[in-house]
Amino acid sequence: MRILGVVQYDGTDYVGWQKQKVGDSIQEEIEKALSKILNTPITIQGSGRTDAGVHALAQHFHFDVDKDITDLDRFTYSVNCLLPDDIHIIEFEVVEPNFHARYDVSDKTYIYTLNVGAYDVFQRKFITQYPNRDLDIDAIKEAAELFKGTHCFKNYTSKEEDEDNFVRTIMVIEVNDANGIIMFRLTADGFMRYMVRIIVGTLIQVGSGKVGLKEIEDSLNESFPRNVMPYKAPPEGLMLVDVNYDKKPFDA
Amino acid sequence: MRILGVVQYDGTDYVGWQKQKVGDSIQEEIEKALSKILNTPITIQGSGRTDAGVHALAQHFHFDVDKDITDLDRFTYSVNCLLPDDIHIIEFEVVEPNFHARYDVSDKTYIYTLNVGAYDVFQRKFITQYPNRDLDIDAIKEAAELFKGTHCFKNYTSKEEDEDNFVRTIMVIEVNDANGIIMFRLTADGFMRYMVRIIVGTLIQVGSGKVGLKEIEDSLNESFPRNVMPYKAPPEGLMLVDVNYDKKPFDA
Repeated sequence: MRILGVVQYDGTDYVGWQKQKVGDSIQEEIEKALSKILNTPITIQGSGRTDAGVHALAQHFHFDVDKDITDLDRFTYSVNCLLPDDIHIIEFEVVEPNFHARYDVSDKTYIYTLNVGAYDVFQRKFITQYPNRDLDIDAIKEAAELFKGTHCFKNYTSKEEDEDNFVRTIMVIEVNDANGIIMFRLTADGFMRYMVRIIVGTLIQVGSGKVGLKEIEDSLNESFPRNVMPYKAPPEGLMLVDVNYDKKPFDA
Repeated sequence: MRILGVVQYDGTDYVGWQKQKVGDSIQEEIEKALSKILNTPITIQGSGRTDAGVHALAQHFHFDVDKDITDLDRFTYSVNCLLPDDIHIIEFEVVEPNFHARYDVSDKTYIYTLNVGAYDVFQRKFITQYPNRDLDIDAIKEAAELFKGTHCFKNYTSKEEDEDNFVRTIMVIEVNDANGIIMFRLTADGFMRYMVRIIVGTLIQVGSGKVGLKEIEDSLNESFPRNVMPYKAPPEGLMLVDVNYDKKPFDA
């Protein structure tokens, strides 16, 4: 049977979702716990990667298991007992055997949170601290509109990224601010590596008056030579908040 | 001149406020930063200790310095640059030479936060995770009233504690709950070691139906033999939120 898992994690102490040569990854921790409980090696397939230091409120993944798991609540409880305290399974559900946690994604939502008020020791691992800054929020909101829609995002991903297709569609990009906290919410059909962080980093530069609208328009012009934007917001403010699927993933 | 400092810290990675033989303390980190900037060994006097893993929104301390510090904002900024990212000075102010951060305390306030709803990886270092519990809040609130006022708290401190005077006055003890989060707010003229954690731990037992009002009344009866309550809530949910002084500590 194929099982879909939804997991919450504090990415602070990890090299990211995916296994690396050195360091602990979220994927490995989950695979270790599942393999131990199911007494057979389990490999999981995530909806995509998250980078070192990035968090998830609801990352999704799937895996296959030979035996029947009759009590999924009990299974969830057991897996959580084996997981470290910064990774927590929210739920497991049985899905169709052809469901795929990565290929079937219809859209994903990330939120990036920035503190431009007084420095906050308690939130520093989840909200990027950029204390006592006076950013032009109206300029940021205006610039954010430029990213909405379907664009070639070749300048908003890692220089090493060499995709066949840099085109993505951003359905939602919202900027909210209150009490010195700025939240950027982005929903797209897919995100390339560093994409949210470079978009947010660029918008912060707009708020500081260092990048203008023309520069962003040019950066999204597919016919111009590739010139990756050099502004990447740090990872700790980034959270994968939701993953949606085209077809209902749940077994009828 | 004597200077009063107000500091915020995430106590997770420290052995507590006070210097210990092994491990890093908040006090040492602040003394190191001050000594470096002032180029002379500085010893600070806190309003009291906090235990390993306990946090502070506004711990207070004082120290003396020979030279005049003319620009306290700039001084604060410099000290914060030297401090690790989990300790942050909120302000420094010049006080009367006879002001004492510990002896002049009129009252202190602590908040203890408990999560009895779904486990939360993001708040686990600041809110004690006690997930999916059904506590009797009305019973907790009723029992909390018993602690209000002046009592001998010999059963609500470390067994090793051997004070001349176990009497303290709790002016405020409030229990609030919403959305699975229970907050205990306590204001007293002073707290002994573990006092808040044992009171909260005992109240949690009341909520679980394991401790009754009579047991608490007996525990506060000064004439009964000492019998320290065995329920100590874990440190991570505890935060020193404020320290008040009798006399206005600020230089006129």
